[in-house]
Order: sequence, then structure tokens, then C-alpha cells
Amino acid sequence: MAHTQDALDDSLADLRRGFHRIPEPAWCEFRTTARLVSELEDRFEPDELHVGPDALAGEHRLAVPDDADLESWYERARAAGVDEDLLSRLEGGYTGAVAVFRQGDHENGPTVGLRVDIDGLPRTESDDADHVPVAENFRSEHEGAMHACGHDAHMTMGIGTIERVLESEFEGTLKVFFQPAEEVIGGGKAMAESDHIEDVDYLLAVHIGLDHPTGEVVAGIGGFLAVSHLEARFTGEPSHAGGHPEEGRNAIQAMATAVQNCYGIPRHSEGATRINVGVVDAGSAANIVAEEAEIVAEARGETTHLMEYMEEKAENVLETAAAMHDCEVSLTLGAKAPSAESDDEIAALVADAAGGVEGVDSVLDHDDLGGSEDATFLMQAVQQRGGKACYVGVGTDHPGGHHTATFDVDEASLRQGVETLAGAIERISRERP
Amino acid sequence: MAHTQDALDDSLADLRRGFHRIPEPAWCEFRTTARLVSELEDRFEPDELHVGPDALAGEHRLAVPDDADLESWYERARAAGVDEDLLSRLEGGYTGAVAVFRQGDHENGPTVGLRVDIDGLPRTESDDADHVPVAENFRSEHEGAMHACGHDAHMTMGIGTIERVLESEFEGTLKVFFQPAEEVIGGGKAMAESDHIEDVDYLLAVHIGLDHPTGEVVAGIGGFLAVSHLEARFTGEPSHAGGHPEEGRNAIQAMATAVQNCYGIPRHSEGATRINVGVVDAGSAANIVAEEAEIVAEARGETTHLMEYMEEKAENVLETAAAMHDCEVSLTLGAKAPSAESDDEIAALVADAAGGVEGVDSVLDHDDLGGSEDATFLMQAVQQRGGKACYVGVGTDHPGGHHTATFDVDEASLRQGVETLAGAIERISRERP
Amino acid sequence: MAHTQDALDDSLADLRRGFHRIPEPAWCEFRTTARLVSELEDRFEPDELHVGPDALAGEHRLAVPDDADLESWYERARAAGVDEDLLSRLEGGYTGAVAVFRQGDHENGPTVGLRVDIDGLPRTESDDADHVPVAENFRSEHEGAMHACGHDAHMTMGIGTIERVLESEFEGTLKVFFQPAEEVIGGGKAMAESDHIEDVDYLLAVHIGLDHPTGEVVAGIGGFLAVSHLEARFTGEPSHAGGHPEEGRNAIQAMATAVQNCYGIPRHSEGATRINVGVVDAGSAANIVAEEAEIVAEARGETTHLMEYMEEKAENVLETAAAMHDCEVSLTLGAKAPSAESDDEIAALVADAAGGVEGVDSVLDHDDLGGSEDATFLMQAVQQRGGKACYVGVGTDHPGGHHTATFDVDEASLRQGVETLAGAIERISRERP
Amino acid sequence: MAHTQDALDDSLADLRRGFHRIPEPAWCEFRTTARLVSELEDRFEPDELHVGPDALAGEHRLAVPDDADLESWYERARAAGVDEDLLSRLEGGYTGAVAVFRQGDHENGPTVGLRVDIDGLPRTESDDADHVPVAENFRSEHEGAMHACGHDAHMTMGIGTIERVLESEFEGTLKVFFQPAEEVIGGGKAMAESDHIEDVDYLLAVHIGLDHPTGEVVAGIGGFLAVSHLEARFTGEPSHAGGHPEEGRNAIQAMATAVQNCYGIPRHSEGATRINVGVVDAGSAANIVAEEAEIVAEARGETTHLMEYMEEKAENVLETAAAMHDCEVSLTLGAKAPSAESDDEIAALVADAAGGVEGVDSVLDHDDLGGSEDATFLMQAVQQRGGKACYVGVGTDHPGGHHTATFDVDEASLRQGVETLAGAIERISRERP
Repeated sequence: MAHTQDALDDSLADLRRGFHRIPEPAWCEFRTTARLVSELEDRFEPDELHVGPDALAGEHRLAVPDDADLESWYERARAAGVDEDLLSRLEGGYTGAVAVFRQGDHENGPTVGLRVDIDGLPRTESDDADHVPVAENFRSEHEGAMHACGHDAHMTMGIGTIERVLESEFEGTLKVFFQPAEEVIGGGKAMAESDHIEDVDYLLAVHIGLDHPTGEVVAGIGGFLAVSHLEARFTGEPSHAGGHPEEGRNAIQAMATAVQNCYGIPRHSEGATRINVGVVDAGSAANIVAEEAEIVAEARGETTHLMEYMEEKAENVLETAAAMHDCEVSLTLGAKAPSAESDDEIAALVADAAGGVEGVDSVLDHDDLGGSEDATFLMQAVQQRGGKACYVGVGTDHPGGHHTATFDVDEASLRQGVETLAGAIERISRERP
Repeated sequence: MAHTQDALDDSLADLRRGFHRIPEPAWCEFRTTARLVSELEDRFEPDELHVGPDALAGEHRLAVPDDADLESWYERARAAGVDEDLLSRLEGGYTGAVAVFRQGDHENGPTVGLRVDIDGLPRTESDDADHVPVAENFRSEHEGAMHACGHDAHMTMGIGTIERVLESEFEGTLKVFFQPAEEVIGGGKAMAESDHIEDVDYLLAVHIGLDHPTGEVVAGIGGFLAVSHLEARFTGEPSHAGGHPEEGRNAIQAMATAVQNCYGIPRHSEGATRINVGVVDAGSAANIVAEEAEIVAEARGETTHLMEYMEEKAENVLETAAAMHDCEVSLTLGAKAPSAESDDEIAALVADAAGGVEGVDSVLDHDDLGGSEDATFLMQAVQQRGGKACYVGVGTDHPGGHHTATFDVDEASLRQGVETLAGAIERISRERP
Repeated sequence: MAHTQDALDDSLADLRRGFHRIPEPAWCEFRTTARLVSELEDRFEPDELHVGPDALAGEHRLAVPDDADLESWYERARAAGVDEDLLSRLEGGYTGAVAVFRQGDHENGPTVGLRVDIDGLPRTESDDADHVPVAENFRSEHEGAMHACGHDAHMTMGIGTIERVLESEFEGTLKVFFQPAEEVIGGGKAMAESDHIEDVDYLLAVHIGLDHPTGEVVAGIGGFLAVSHLEARFTGEPSHAGGHPEEGRNAIQAMATAVQNCYGIPRHSEGATRINVGVVDAGSAANIVAEEAEIVAEARGETTHLMEYMEEKAENVLETAAAMHDCEVSLTLGAKAPSAESDDEIAALVADAAGGVEGVDSVLDHDDLGGSEDATFLMQAVQQRGGKACYVGVGTDHPGGHHTATFDVDEASLRQGVETLAGAIERISRERP
Repeated sequence: MAHTQDALDDSLADLRRGFHRIPEPAWCEFRTTARLVSELEDRFEPDELHVGPDALAGEHRLAVPDDADLESWYERARAAGVDEDLLSRLEGGYTGAVAVFRQGDHENGPTVGLRVDIDGLPRTESDDADHVPVAENFRSEHEGAMHACGHDAHMTMGIGTIERVLESEFEGTLKVFFQPAEEVIGGGKAMAESDHIEDVDYLLAVHIGLDHPTGEVVAGIGGFLAVSHLEARFTGEPSHAGGHPEEGRNAIQAMATAVQNCYGIPRHSEGATRINVGVVDAGSAANIVAEEAEIVAEARGETTHLMEYMEEKAENVLETAAAMHDCEVSLTLGAKAPSAESDDEIAALVADAAGGVEGVDSVLDHDDLGGSEDATFLMQAVQQRGGKACYVGVGTDHPGGHHTATFDVDEASLRQGVETLAGAIERISRERP
């Protein structure tokens, strides 16, 4: 038994390392999608396999990067030898996949969805010799991109869970949503608006880590903050900073004023709020009064109402900061995701399943995320139709924090996640809570 | 006569358009230097021609870009077919050239220097159909770089002036300094510290435009502001902006505070001061508290003392802004240039020469630049040894301002500049003021 | 019965209007204390009546105003004819009173404390004709001061409750703490450190309004934010703003930078935080670079830990903002109060009592305040000795918000509060929860 | 001769100390005006003496304080025993005087004006034992007000000059303008708009100190910056900072944003500009989101055009800062004064006169003030009618800077000023430049 677990551990670790090497940012997961397709087809015989534009409602994609970025990652995937036919179906940022498996008396069984996300982050991975992916030689091959949030592990758990469920007594339909663009809150809505979600009776989603150690499972995560992305481009007028400073309309001054005052938006008595200006890119040279400044920001709230409070305040700050420095500003309200909670009935089954998994020594009923996730679109879509949803946390010892250059997962947690998810899915088909 | 002028006009215009097509930023003027060498060798037989590391004191180069940028422009030059031998001598950002010509009884004649600058700007040229370089098909071939300050015209006037002087009764030594990296105040010091400046008795420098129309010459420009470049990199601590905002140390907040307060440095009663934060680059994603923020800034003053006042205040602002947000900051004090004035005796000869040039209908004795220039290093080097210097302005109708995407020159002013400079050089050798 | 209630209503309203006319700010409640003493002695025969320095631990008073302010209110009270003997005991800002009543088999009964606060706010009352105190002629006689938080009603309910309890079957000791200086978090600690609290077994505190309507009682309020007051005085160097701006060290720039960045202190994932800069006083004339700037601020947190997080961040902001503008800053960390919760056992008795009060149509078990209160010092003192405490909310229709110029109470709620408190006190003596 | 000078020195010092003791701020110079009237009537027999509303065009007074302030100083003057009849003529802030003297063949002589200013500053005088007014017992009797700019010396020189001129061979009309409210740029326009200025052919104005030592005279001061006063009142909405921070509209945040960005208004290439926010008064309590914030600011420029550039930019900053925090702002554009220059012809006569004064060892032709002065209104009024004007600087060793608590004058300079001014006036009547 231990031997089998070791073998499974090794197999899952290999799979994960393969994904870890090729991180691609949101909507650019060309090579990742191709690899998923090939793993799914090699290992299983899916009843249905929807890829790219067939896997989601393309018009509902949010936060799609510009053509140059898409093209650059597309070409990189082509250069890496991705099958041209498949690649061409993904062109323009239509990534991701939905795999469907039917088993047993599936017509009388439930449809259970499992959502895993697949995108990496625009961050350079640590090249420190102590960083395991360096030491063990599976560091990101894509300089400037990194699986710094564990989505490599999520995809791995998705495939591992399919394997386990197909070996189990599960009767019903299993749909695995390999969702792109979670990090930019970009893909959840597009999958939630597709037909694929419509018949899902139960939905599980999974996240590794989140400051929980290896061996700990959180049966139902809630407290997702609603989130909204904003991009603002300030446009002023350039001038020579020495010769004619008064002729400039300084986009960098507008930006700095906006940043300071966004962080100063009043806290709200009804609950948690957040604001972050995460990216600034402005100006062209030391001696030119900056003509342009761009910022990328996000607002969050414990409820959608609170998120909208922050968003409206931020919009006003951005507009008045522009006016203060005689600049224009164009705002792009980007991706948004609602808040959500896990259903207790499913959480109980997850807890039950986790309790029996070797290596799991702590099962928590509930935890609040404090962050945001666009899995909430899918959870909401299922819950609004009368279905039930649960977001599962699989602890892992991670040396660096999420989104940092030294993030890594303890691969021992992969099997724990797989067995917890597969166990929960089997219990769902049996108990129909 | 008119015919000859037309021919000269055409020839100068062609030369200028050739340079205009291939703008390269500071210290990356590989292709430009190669082209200068080839034009000089094709047209004349210089008594000496010093290139790259031989043209300047390499250890005094300021504001040299990082290896990746140098390499990228180097490779672009190679791809454009630049002679490998020559190119290899320029590797690592050793660009520019000094051409020496001796004529007549040169041992008893003066050594007259002419300084022209050769670098372009990191700015995308307008693609508007009305923009003459578009309409006439000589827009920048280097997307993202542009001769937006007229250095293409300066090089052209340098070559044209050599031609005219060699045809004239000038007796003495003419040294033309094709100086790299003026826009970043990077090359002047390196040329001023080289041996080539040591025997220069008289120095002319030239700038086109500066809001003076075609037909106007400013015999002696002064009032150069002393300038200092600063780069600051704020380093904080990333964290998830939704999940753990309190764990971040926000480099973007530090930056915004610094920007606001740099612009608020008190004005000074002793004269003009300037501050500009021209470039900001910060953060990695909307949902990450930014770990890093970089700014590129400059301080100026009507005197070196006033520039240092601004510089010291700015340093304090940068350091305290970092401390305010628990960040570190590393400051790089970059290029500096002193203030300077033109000598009246030379300005009088320039005015005299300009007065006789066809098409020149207005000659101003003096104007203040209000900006900065690292020609001041060369002027100071000559003046401190007892020589005399003069900075000459050649008006040109320019549709967009300097450093803007629609900057362009009226090519009629090229010949006016050439004849003014050559006339002044001949007068200098005759009158030895 | 209704008739009696009307009479009581009228009597309570008269009493409240008397207090409403003479608001005095924190530690300046000279006339108010005198009036309380006279009402208590006229109406009852207290077993003990401790006044001023005898009512509290004077050395633990927080946020005492400066001598000039104390003196000015002291003289105003004298001018109003307050008894000189009593007044002299209060001199220097020793205000407030503790009244003790023993009844029945008090040696075997519990000691029940009731805390009401007595200070007004430094705010000018509305003179709008629609404002009831204007229409009914009991507007503040002290221009610039106002009972804008209902402490006039609290004192009234304190006296009304004594009356009711003395008529009831209560057996034990009743101590009513008429606490000064709540608005500046200044008096709670001084009363909590006095001997009077030591034998209190049960403590009630009361607040009117808080956005609950007339007829609603909140049996147990909790969620008090811990709070800390900060005062900062920036000191720079004055200079003539036209003649020598560079010689100034601008305390107003330091202040503005501090304000902006205090509001930008990151939110905390563990719970609610607050920051407010509530008062700024700076500079002397338009043409002088400001030498001094003072701010009064406060930091709060859902726990004492979170309050301290805000406080430490704010201190760092204040110190670095001063350094940024070459100023000094002296920080005075003023009054603080802990967070607190009500005990459920007492809340249940309060709810039970409220349920039987005519006019009370809604009883809430619990509500979170979201603000701060220095009653928490007294609650903590009782709870730490094994006693129990409960903070009671008595709803009232109030046209303007608390602390605004149009705040007013619906006097119908006075009797509801009195009957609820007296009913709860009687139940406590009977049930000893 | 020396003896006489000593006596004059003593008499001038006494006079000055009398004024020094009773500083009154702008438009509140009730006691000062009364003292001037009494000194003028006691010492001389003026041909005309216009006081208060008769001395100026009342409707052109700028920056008049509110009634409460006027009243408070008025009552103080009455309490000091000022003649009731005279006082009643000054009521409402109509202060100042114009004294007219005719001598010799005055009908054929010129009319020479001398303008001295009379107001003090709202600043507390040093009580340091080393401060001469403390040591010699003539420190300000008006706590919080101070002659910190030397106007006590100006009045003294005005009276001393009358005395000298009346003893001299001057033939013509001498008009001395004792102008109120210079510090707030409030009185110059009102005197410049009165009839009294209309027949003035030559105007002198005088200022002591300005960083010139005792024994130095500046014959003609120019370079006055144009100035404009602004007051802004931000109005938001109060709320409880702990309980409902989101319900506030924070006037202090609006103010801080405005302050930061006012100082960040771009410098101008055409000449010197200034901005100063000199006073801030905001908010009511630490726990209330501030409803109101007031600032007093000023903009200056080397020309009126540059002052207007600053003023317009500042207005935009104030308005957008209010909008950013959902506040309203009401702007009061207050007093303004133009820029001005001294006429060389008069300066030459002043220099000539100063050259012969005992104790004057340095005479400068010209200096730039760098500050502002509403004497420019009177200078402009005279110059625009074809007259000539000159602003004279009389050096004095002053231990503290102008407008600081330790400012004081070296009384030896009083006689030097008187003799210079009287000598210049006599020369003017003789030479009619």
C-alpha cells in the first residue's frame, strides 16, 4: 500500500514538475492547454473533451491581454513544438479545456464538477540554489513567468482525481473544468457562462497551500472577497522638463496623487475592504514631463456591495487626480468576481473523505480566504440553479508565500488532495446531499 | 549660386534623412557611429579618426545602460550589416568619434573644436500621415526610438561644416566631436576627460530648433541649467493584496509619496530650480502588493549650487519615503552636467558669419536655454584652460516640440547652420579672438 | 398608568433639557457636575456621594486639556453662579461623581454599577428653526459646545434609574458612575482605577441612539474597537515665503504628507482597523513658511493588537513625514481604551426587562458598536475580577447623526431606558446570574 | 553735531519703542492710528490730516478681518484709553492716516509722497532674556501680536522725516501715507485708489532690514513679486470615525491632498514663482471625520502673468482636491499686488543723499526684493500718471529674520533712514528729475 502511494506520489510529482516548467500567464496558456489535452487523451478516454473556444463562452472572457502579448506567447508555444492544429484553435487567447467522463448508471447519477485553474504568474522564479525547483532542475523555462500560486499542482490534482474517480464506484458524470486566467479574474466568468456548467449539480474547487501545512485539509473555504480590476491610463502632455516645465501636463503627478488617495479611501463599517495599485508604468525619460502613466489596480470587498463602494471611490479618485494635473484618464473596468461561501453539506462529505486519507492529520471545517477567486462565478452559477458548491483547501508546506519568487509546494500533498477530492466525489454520488 | 545652394540643400537633406531612419539611444549608437565613420572616410581624408573607446575616456562615461539593452542594440546593428570589425571596437557601449583635419599653416593656427551629438530618444515616432518623415518615407526604422531632438540634423551639420571648412581659407586644426549619449547627460564628460579636448583653443557647439524659426540664428546660447540624474529603486515585500495586505511593504506607496514630495521641494530665491520624475516602473500584478518600484528623475539648477540643493532635498525625500513604507531604497546618482555660458567674443564672430548667410534674416546675440546639455563639460574644459567657447542655435520651423512624437526639422535650416558654423570657424582662424 | 408615564416622560424631558443647555467638554464639566450633585441631593439621600477628585483616580485621567481651557470653562461655571465651595473641589479638571445607594438586605445583595457619561462635544449646535432644541428653546447656551452624542440623556437616565430602583424590590448596593471625559477616552480609566469599582459585581453601561429607532433596545452591545489617541506637533523653521522659501522647514508640508499616508496604512486581514486625523491646526500667516503644525488623530482596531498595529504604523508615518521636510515631531500618545464584549447572562436579563417595557417593540440580543468607548475600562475591571458587564443600547429616533450639529433625541426613549435599566438591576439582584 | 545726533537717536528710539509695545494686526491699528495722530498733532501743524475712512478708498480695502476680530481689537484700544471720538471714526477697520505739509513756494514745487506701513503681525514675540525688547522692557504688550517686520521703525522714520524736511529747504508739498494692512496686502490698493495719490509727482517708500546690515542703504529696490492671497474652505460631512468612517466626507483629506499638490505646481521657465500654504485650521475632534478645513495660501510670480499662472493652477488643485473627497470648496481670492520696479532717476538722488549720511558706509544702487509689497499699488499709481517712484532699503542689524519671534532692529539705523529720506526729498524738490 505504501509502495503504491509512493508510486502515485512519484507519478503526481512528475506530472506537476512538467507543468511547473512551462508557466504561461492568463489567456496565454497555449502550451499548457496542449499538454493537458495530451495528458487527458493519453491517460483516459474522455467522453467529451472541449478545448479553447469550445470550453468557454468566449465573449465573457475578461482581462484578455493585448494582441502583441498573446502573439508572443503563441509563438513561443509554436517554437516549443505544440501541434499546429490544436494551437490554431486556441489562437487569440481561447485557452482551457473541459473534460467529461460518464461512469456507471450515469443517467441516474449526479453531475459533479471539479474546477482547477491553469495559469501562471508574471513573476521571475527564484534562482537560489536552495529553491527546490532549482535544486531538482524543474525551474520555470519561461523567464519572467512562474507557477507561483500552485496552479501546476491544481492541474495535477485534476488529472489525478479523474484517475481515482474512474477507478472508484462513482456513478454519474464527472466534469473537470481546466480554467484559464484565474490570476486576472478572467476565466471564471467565461466558464460560468458556458453551457457546460448548466447541468452541474455539485461543484468542487480546490486550492493548495494558503498557509495551511501539509497534512491539513480545509473542508469548506468561504469568505471570498468580491473583487474588481481597474486599469487607468493617464494622458497628459510631454514637455522638456528643464526648458518648459510649465508646458507639460504631468501624467506621473496625476498617477502619484491617485495612488496616494486610492489607499486613503475610507474603511467601511460593514466589513472588510481592500484596494491595491499593483502595477505602475509611466513616462519615457528623465528629462521629459511624462505624457503617459498607466496603473493596474484592484478593489475588493467582503460583499459585492463593499467592493462596489471601493470601486466607485477609486474611480472618483482617478478622475479627479487626472483633472488636478490637467490630464485625461481612461478607465478600463476589468474583471470582477463575486463573493461566495461553501455549502456545509458538501463540506461535511469532503471532511469525511479527508479524514480517511493517509497523511492527513488535521481537517478544518471552515476557513475564510480573505482573498478573491473567480471560482466564485462557477460556484454562484451552480448555487443559483439549486446546486451545491464547495471550495476545498489542501495544505502544503510552502517555503515562500503565494505569489513570491520562492513559492513551492510539498509534493506529498498532491496525493492527499487527489484522495480527498476523489473520496468526496464518490461520497457525493452515493449520498446526493 | 541658387543652384549650388539647392544642390547642397538636397545633399544635406539626404544625409539627414539617412540618420533620421536609424535612431539609437544613448551609448547604443553602433549603427550611427558606423555610418559616421563611413561618411567621413568616403567624403574626406581625415588626418585622424578616433572611434569608440579611442574617442573618449571610457571610464568617465555616465548613464550607460545595462548589458541586455546594449546587447539588443548591438545585435540589431549587426543584423543591419554593420562591419563586424568596426562593431567589435564599439562593443559594450563605446560609441562616438572624433575626426581631426589640419589645413594650411596649421602649426601656427588655432585648434577649433566643433561638437555635435548623435543619440536618439526612446520615443515612438508619430505615424501620422501629415508627419513629414512619414509622408516622405524616412520615418524611424527602429520602433520605439526616434530622432526627436534633431541630433540627426546636428550630425549632418557636422559633416557639412567639415566640407565647407576644407573648401575655405581656414588655417589651423579642426576637430569634430561626434558625441554620444547627450540625452542622458552621459557622453559629454567622457569626451571632456579625453586627451582630444586638451589642445582645443576654441569650441563651438550647435543645436537646432529650440523654438527659434527657420532663418533665425542665436549667436551665443547660455543659461544652461546644471543637471543631475537620479535613479531610485524602492524594495519592499510582496504580499497578497486581498489575503494579507498588512504583510506587504508597499514599494508603490513609497514611490507615490516620493513623487509627490519631490515636486514639492521648495523653490529657491537665488534662481531657477527644476525637478522631474520622468519614468516610473513598478509592481508586477494587480493582486500583489508591489515589491519593487523604480523611478528615474533629474534635478536642475541655474547654478551647480542650486542643482545640488535640489539633489540633496530629493535624496532626503526618497529615503524618508522609503522609510515611511518600511521599504529600502537604493539611490544611483547618475550623470551630472555643470551650468555654462557662451563667450561673447566668439558669439560676435558667429553673429557676423550668420549675418551673411542667405536665408538667415534674424540674428540674436544671446538666449538662455533653460535646459541642460552636457556640452557644458566640453565648454568648461576649454574655458578652464583659457580657451573660449560658444553654443550656437540654428532656428528651424519644427511642427512638434522637442522630444515629442511629431518633432521634425525644416531641412532648409541645415545649410544655414553649415554656413554659419563654417563662416565662424574661418573667422576664428583669422581673428584669433 | 399612561398618565403616570406621561408625568415621568415630562419630568425626564425637563431634566434632560436642563443638561442639554449647558454642555461642557471633557474635564470641564464643572457646571454639569454641580448640577448632578444638586439633583442627587435634592431628589435622594445618597448613602455616599463622591465628587471630583474623590470620584476617580486623578492621576489616571487622560487627555486633560491645558490650563487655559480648564480655566476658561471654570470661570464660565463660576459666572453662572455655581457654588464656590463645590467648584473649588473640581478645580483643575477633577469632574464627575459617584453616587452610592444601599437598600434592603444589602449586605447579602450584590453591588450593581451603572455607568453614564456626562461630557459634551466641541461642536456648535444647529440654529435651524427645525432643530427641536431651537424650536423648544433649550439649545446649547455654550456657543461652540453641544450635547451632540446624547450624554444629556445618559445623565437623565442615570437619575431616573436611581429613582426607579429605589422604588423597586432591589436589595443590594447601587453605584452610579457619572463619568467625565468619555469623548476623549479620558475618564474611563480614571474611574476604573479608583476604589469605587473594586466591589462592583455587575456593571451596566448605557448609550442612546446608535442608529436604533425609538422602541428598540439592544440588550448587549459588543464589538468595541480598541482605540488610541495620538497628538503630533511638527516643528520646522519659519521663513518668508516670497523672499526665502528655501530657508523654511515647512511644518505644513510635513503635516500634509503625514495625513495622506496615515490614511494609506494598509488594511489588516485579521479584522477592522481605523485611522482618523480629526484636527489640524498649523501655521500663522499666508506669507510665512509654517513653523508649526499640530494634528490630533486616533487609531482603532477590532482587537487591541490591531489597534497597536495602526498606532505603530501611524507613528512611523508621522516621524518619517517630519524627517522628509526637515522638521521635528513630538508625539503624545494619549488616551487608550481596550476592546470589550458584553456578557450574555446579563444581556439576557436586560432583554427580559426590556421586553416588558411599554413602548419597546424590538429587543435585539446583540449588536456590534464599531466605535470605541472608555466604558470598556470599567467593564474590563469588573470582568477581570470575575464580575459581569453589559453595555445596553436604548434606541431613539435621532434626526442628525451622532456628533453632528442636528443630533437630537426622541425624549420618549428616556423612560424606556430608565425602565429597562431599573428592571435589569432588579432582576440582577434577584437572580445573581 | 554728534551730540545732536545722539539726541535725535534717542528721540527716534523712544518713538519706535512706543510703537513697538502696541502692535496691532492689519485693519486693527486703532491704537496705532490714534498714537500717530497724537504724535503728528503734538509735533507739527499739518496742513491736512486725513484719518481712517478719509485717508483711503474704503471700498478698496482688501483682506479685512471678520467683525469679531475687528471688535476685539477695537475694544482693546478703547480699554487702553483711546479717545472715543477718534476711535469711532475708525470703527469697522478704517485705519491709517495721510498727513500733508506745504512749505516754501509749494505751488510751484512738486508733491512728494512718502509711504510707511503701520501694521503688526499675528505672532508672539520672544520672551527670551537676550531679546532686546525684553531686556529693555518694551516687548509687545499685545500677547500674540508683534512688530516682527519693522513697521514700528517705518512709522518712526515717517515722523522723523517730516521733522527733517520741515527744517530743510524743501519747497513743495510733502504727503506721508501711514498705510495700514501691508502684511495682508490689504491697504495699498485702498490708498492707491484714494484721491490723495492723484497729485503725487514722486513717491518714496521705505523698508528697514531685509538682510542688509546697519550702515547700508539700498537706493532703489525692485524685483517685487506679484502676489495673490487665496483662502479656501473645504466642507465635507462629519461622521463618527470609528462607527461609520464611510459616511464621512473628509475635509482634512481634501486639504492634505490640496496642500501636497499646490506645492507641486510646475515651476515656470519665464521666471520665479512661489506658492505657500501658510495656515491650516481643520476639524473638531479626533473621533469625528472632519467636516471643515480652511487654508490660507498665497501665490506669487516675478510678473503678474506668472502670479496668475500659479493662482489658476492652485485654484484647480483646490477644486479637484475637494471633488476627490466628495467635499465642496469655497474659494476666496483675496488681496493682490502687482510687481514693480524703482525708477533709476530717483534712486540716484537717494544714493546721493545716503552717501552723505553719517554712519552710512555702503550704498547699493539696486537690489531685488524677491518678496511682495503692496506699496507697488501706490508706485504703479504714480508711475502710470507719469510720476516716478522709488523703494528705499535702510539696512539694520537684525538678530532674527523678518517675521520671526526674535526680529528686532538696530535703532542706530533709524536716524540713517530719516536723513537719507529727508535728503532725497530735498534733492527731489531741487532737481525735479
